[in-house]
Amino acid sequence: MQLNKEQVLQALSNVEEPDLKKDLVTLNMIQDIHIEGNRLSFSVILTTPACPLKGLIENACRNAISHFISPAVEVSINMTSRVTTQKNTGVPGVKNIIAVASGKGGVGKSTVAANLALGLAATGAKVGLIDADIYGPSVPIMFGLEGAKPQASQVNGKTRIEPIEKYGIKLLSIGFFTDPNQPVPWRGPMVSSAVKQLFNDADWGELDYLVVDLPPGTGDIHITVTQSFPITGAVIVTTPQNVALADAKKGIGMLMMDAINVPILGIIENMSYFTPAELPENKYYIFGEGGGVKLANMINAPFLGEIPMVKSISESGDAGKPVVLTEDGILSKAFLHLAERVAQQISVYNAKATDLQDVINR
Amino acid sequence: MQLNKEQVLQALSNVEEPDLKKDLVTLNMIQDIHIEGNRLSFSVILTTPACPLKGLIENACRNAISHFISPAVEVSINMTSRVTTQKNTGVPGVKNIIAVASGKGGVGKSTVAANLALGLAATGAKVGLIDADIYGPSVPIMFGLEGAKPQASQVNGKTRIEPIEKYGIKLLSIGFFTDPNQPVPWRGPMVSSAVKQLFNDADWGELDYLVVDLPPGTGDIHITVTQSFPITGAVIVTTPQNVALADAKKGIGMLMMDAINVPILGIIENMSYFTPAELPENKYYIFGEGGGVKLANMINAPFLGEIPMVKSISESGDAGKPVVLTEDGILSKAFLHLAERVAQQISVYNAKATDLQDVINR
Repeated sequence: MQLNKEQVLQALSNVEEPDLKKDLVTLNMIQDIHIEGNRLSFSVILTTPACPLKGLIENACRNAISHFISPAVEVSINMTSRVTTQKNTGVPGVKNIIAVASGKGGVGKSTVAANLALGLAATGAKVGLIDADIYGPSVPIMFGLEGAKPQASQVNGKTRIEPIEKYGIKLLSIGFFTDPNQPVPWRGPMVSSAVKQLFNDADWGELDYLVVDLPPGTGDIHITVTQSFPITGAVIVTTPQNVALADAKKGIGMLMMDAINVPILGIIENMSYFTPAELPENKYYIFGEGGGVKLANMINAPFLGEIPMVKSISESGDAGKPVVLTEDGILSKAFLHLAERVAQQISVYNAKATDLQDVINR
Repeated sequence: MQLNKEQVLQALSNVEEPDLKKDLVTLNMIQDIHIEGNRLSFSVILTTPACPLKGLIENACRNAISHFISPAVEVSINMTSRVTTQKNTGVPGVKNIIAVASGKGGVGKSTVAANLALGLAATGAKVGLIDADIYGPSVPIMFGLEGAKPQASQVNGKTRIEPIEKYGIKLLSIGFFTDPNQPVPWRGPMVSSAVKQLFNDADWGELDYLVVDLPPGTGDIHITVTQSFPITGAVIVTTPQNVALADAKKGIGMLMMDAINVPILGIIENMSYFTPAELPENKYYIFGEGGGVKLANMINAPFLGEIPMVKSISESGDAGKPVVLTEDGILSKAFLHLAERVAQQISVYNAKATDLQDVINR
C-alpha cells in the first residue's frame, strides 16, 4: 500500500467539525501532512486551544483514516490551534475582545471575568484581562496585586503602559492607577478617557482573547467601550433572583441595540445554590432557582452553566488567587468548562461572520 | 399634697435622655403638663417615633415622679415624637435625607433601603423613598409596582410629580420613568438631571425621613445628590468579603471628603451567614466573617447589625412585598432594629449639630 496526501485528505473530509458544521478539509484545518511508509502524521488546527471537542475530533480523524484507508496506518496527530478573529478589535495584536457584563452589580462578574481569563489561559491561549470597573476595581485584590504599579515607557514619543503579568495572563486594572483608600469621584468623561487608555496605551502584544470586566449598569464606560472597540461577544453574569434578571435583561438590551450590536455568547448563573459540607446532597437555592436558564431562553442565548456559592470562591478571591487555580475540584472544573464554552461560541461566531478559509489562514 | 408644675419639672430633670446625654427638661422634651388632684399627665416629645429607648425613658419618668414626689401620684404619660432636623435639605417639607450607599453593587443596598424605609414608617414616621439607581432600579419589582406611572400635574406652571404610595410610604423610582425592558444607555449629565427631578419636581409633602437608594460606585449620581441636597447621614451596606469592604471604604471615603461631608450613620452587613432549616445551629459564613464590624471599627462608625442570607429576602423582594412586612420573625426584627438604630443616630447628629432647644421646638 502506498499512502498519499490526496487519500488522507479524502478520508479526513468525512470528519465534521461539530460546531462549525463543515468538514475539517473544507475548513482548512488539516495541515502539515507527512507520510513515511505507512506512518502518517498531520496537524489539526482547531479554532481555539480551549476546544472542548478536541478529543472527539482527534478520535474521529483516527477512525476516518482507519476506516477509509486502512487500520494498518500508524497515525500521529498534532492537535494544535490558531485562534480565529473576525474584525479589527481596535487594539493591535488582539484577536478577540470578550466583555463580561451583568446589569446588576455584585453578582460575581469580576469573579467570572478573572476565572474565565485564567481558564482560557490554562488551555494554552494568550490572554489579557482589563478591569474596567472604575468605581470598584477587583483585580488588584483578586490577583494579590495591591499596590502594584504597571511600568510605563516612551515608544516613539508615545506612552506605553506595560500590563502586569500574573498566573500567565496580562492584567491591567483601573485600580492600579488609583489609590485603593481614596474614592474616585469622577464624572463620565474622565472615566471614559481613563478606560480608553487601558486599551489604547497598553502594550498588549499578541493576544487570543482580551477579557474586559465591565462595571455594572449601562453607563459611560459601556457606551465608550462598545463604541470604541468592536467586542467579539459578551458573557452575561446573573444571579437567580428576579431583580437581578431584570437588570441583566437591560444590560443585554443595551448590547443588542443596533448601534452597539455585541453578540451575546451566553448566560452564566452565579450564586446558584449553597451546599453545606454536612449535607452534601442538599442544594439550597437561596436566591431562587432557574433564573439563569429562564433568561437564556428568553433571549435565545446559550446557558453556559451555574456556579454554586462556595466559601472558597470569595476566600480565594480575597487571598489573591482566583479559585480556578486552586484545588477546589467542582469550581475549577466549572470555570474551565465555562472557558471552553465561551471559546467555542467565539469560534462559531467568527466562522459565521467571515469567510472561514480566510479566518483559519490569518 | 398639692402637686404643682415646678415639682414635676424638678423631678423629671433627673431623667437623662441616654443618647443625647442631657435631661428631658433641659431638652424641652416635657410638654402638656396637666394636674388634677393627684393625677398627673404629660407628654414626652421624643426626637423620633423610632426611638428604641421609648420604654426605658417612660419607666424612668414614672420612677422619678414616684421617687422625687410621691408613689401616690397617678401618672399618665403620652410618649410622642417630633422628628428633629438640622439643616435645610433642599427639598421643601423634608426634615432628613438618609442615603443608603455601598460602593460595591449587589450587596443588598436596595433591600436595606426599602426595609429601612418601611421600618421607619412602622414606628409612625412619615417616610419617602427615592430609588436613584438609574441603571438598576429595584423599587418597581420590590414593591410590586411594575408598570406604575406616577401622576404629574401642573402647579403654578411647574410640573409636579406625585410619588406613588404603597405600604404607607411615598415612592419614586427612576424605573417608573423608563421602560423595564429597555436599557438606559445614558451618559452622566442626563443621569444627573433625571435624578435631580426626583427630588425637586416631586410633591413629597411633609416627611420625617426621605431614604435615598444610591447606585453603587462614586459617580455622577453621588456627586450630584450630595452636592445638591444636604444629606443628614448615610447608611453603608457591605457584605463580609474583602473585595466588598474595599469598595465600601471608597464609597465612605467619598462621603467623608471635605467638599461632601456626609456623616456616616453606621455600617450594616448583609449576607452575613446562611443557616439551613435542617441545621438551625449552624451558621455558614460563606462570604467570610466579621467584615462589617472590621469596617465599622476602621472608620469609627457604629455597627448597625448583620442580616443573614435567607431565601425569604429575595423571594419577598421578587414578590413585591419587602421582608420587613412579612411574617419572617428574624428578618423583620433585624430590619426594625436597624430602623431604630438609624433614627437614633440621626437624632444624635441633629442634636449635636444644632442648638437642641431650637431643634425640639421646630
